[in-house]
Amino acid sequence: MSPQNLDSLTQAVQERFADTPEPRLKEIMVALVKHLHAFARDVRLTEAEWFQGIEYLTAAGQKCTATRQEFILLSDVLGLSMLTVAMNNDKPPGCTEATVFGPFYVPDAPHYENGDDVANGASGQPCLVRGTVRGLGGEAIARATIEVWQADDEGHYDVQKEDLPHAQARGVLYSRADGSFDFKTIVSEAYPIPTDGPVGALLQATRRSPWRPAHLHFMLKAEGYETLITHVFRKECVYMQADPVFGVRESLIADWKLLPDGATLLEFDFVLNPTR
Amino acid sequence: MSPQNLDSLTQAVQERFADTPEPRLKEIMVALVKHLHAFARDVRLTEAEWFQGIEYLTAAGQKCTATRQEFILLSDVLGLSMLTVAMNNDKPPGCTEATVFGPFYVPDAPHYENGDDVANGASGQPCLVRGTVRGLGGEAIARATIEVWQADDEGHYDVQKEDLPHAQARGVLYSRADGSFDFKTIVSEAYPIPTDGPVGALLQATRRSPWRPAHLHFMLKAEGYETLITHVFRKECVYMQADPVFGVRESLIADWKLLPDGATLLEFDFVLNPTR
Repeated sequence: MSPQNLDSLTQAVQERFADTPEPRLKEIMVALVKHLHAFARDVRLTEAEWFQGIEYLTAAGQKCTATRQEFILLSDVLGLSMLTVAMNNDKPPGCTEATVFGPFYVPDAPHYENGDDVANGASGQPCLVRGTVRGLGGEAIARATIEVWQADDEGHYDVQKEDLPHAQARGVLYSRADGSFDFKTIVSEAYPIPTDGPVGALLQATRRSPWRPAHLHFMLKAEGYETLITHVFRKECVYMQADPVFGVRESLIADWKLLPDGATLLEFDFVLNPTR
Repeated sequence: MSPQNLDSLTQAVQERFADTPEPRLKEIMVALVKHLHAFARDVRLTEAEWFQGIEYLTAAGQKCTATRQEFILLSDVLGLSMLTVAMNNDKPPGCTEATVFGPFYVPDAPHYENGDDVANGASGQPCLVRGTVRGLGGEAIARATIEVWQADDEGHYDVQKEDLPHAQARGVLYSRADGSFDFKTIVSEAYPIPTDGPVGALLQATRRSPWRPAHLHFMLKAEGYETLITHVFRKECVYMQADPVFGVRESLIADWKLLPDGATLLEFDFVLNPTR
């Protein structure tokens, strides 16, 4: 088939979406066909490679369960998740940057008071976290919802463990009237993303490291401000240069200081963008 | 994030594939990242839409079974299957054109002699099929393997029916010394592609018809010639203008003639391309 005939095939597929009632769906499908066909033509995809692709997507779908999302992981390692986050969270200078959500958030985490230990039995070195939540104008934000989650020192989130009776290293607390907060937890450690599925096979075949640099997840919500989903990264982590999900932002890397009593202190101040 | 920063994210993802040992895999991954990111930026994909995409792919993967391939169906309705076939089966003028394989082929079909009835109990109007297999130079091809498969008059292939004791409307035969062949079967009828999964939901949301124009599948193999995977379409079918999988080629549409005895006759001559 000549290039002209391939063009007319792509055009015929796009035209088939002409009667789509929802304009946004139509826009997305027409663009998807454009870029999908451009990819196949660019690499001159063979029929065997096409079938390998079909089998790969099928395996990814069949790996998914209530607590395992292989397509989010695939989107993460292809940089699509971070790209989507970056496009949709373009905040003014001075605001804390957003990063990827990751596949390990779960709703309905237990609530804690300032000063509590959210580790709740998760294994790891003790860590104290404290900071403030402020608006872009410098104003303290009282009663901001601060949700945190992290892996234990074996690299597992609580949702990855079977038969755990309660949440661990995951919780919700609120900033005080002056915007301050503090809680106890465990020190964040580097861990590999799950490698026992199709995404692991892709990383192995392309000689990519599955190790995520040590980080603590935060989601901050406050009335009148945009929700912020982000991580704070641990400066000394050796995996900082090659995060497999491309989530590291310079401004999110913090010093985690070793205290005289052997505990570690993370201090981090968040700045939220007023709702636009 | 500025467009420049988005560009540098895409570049960082591409560079992460630098150590891929297999050059073709590297080429494919770098191009995939390029076009996937271009798609997301082109439509300015929102986080909610991204998640809908994740859920859609997951549902497609989980719909797949040993006899149901939802990702092939998805590739078909996005025109990717036909594009891949067209790119890889660019034959000289005079050769029979290729078209999509479809998800209903199964290996190890029963063998028949010329003149046999391959319907084997499938419901439908009787049909006689006859033709020749020749090479591009006009030479008769003896002992070409001719594999055929089709849906019954209720629109189902044998593999879609539970507990069928044997193959129906599916078989393998061989051309005679003069390249001729003939067999009995049932008349091909239009049928909808399966609509009870994510692909059906997409067709419905975009107001696309699931009806494939009536066709008979052929796969022809002969030593010294390129394998040909194609359909022959039934001229009078009302669905010819909007095949949901974009498989129709003008040269593959044939008259299926009604005979005085009430049976239908399809005559079609195939021309194979010598191996390059």
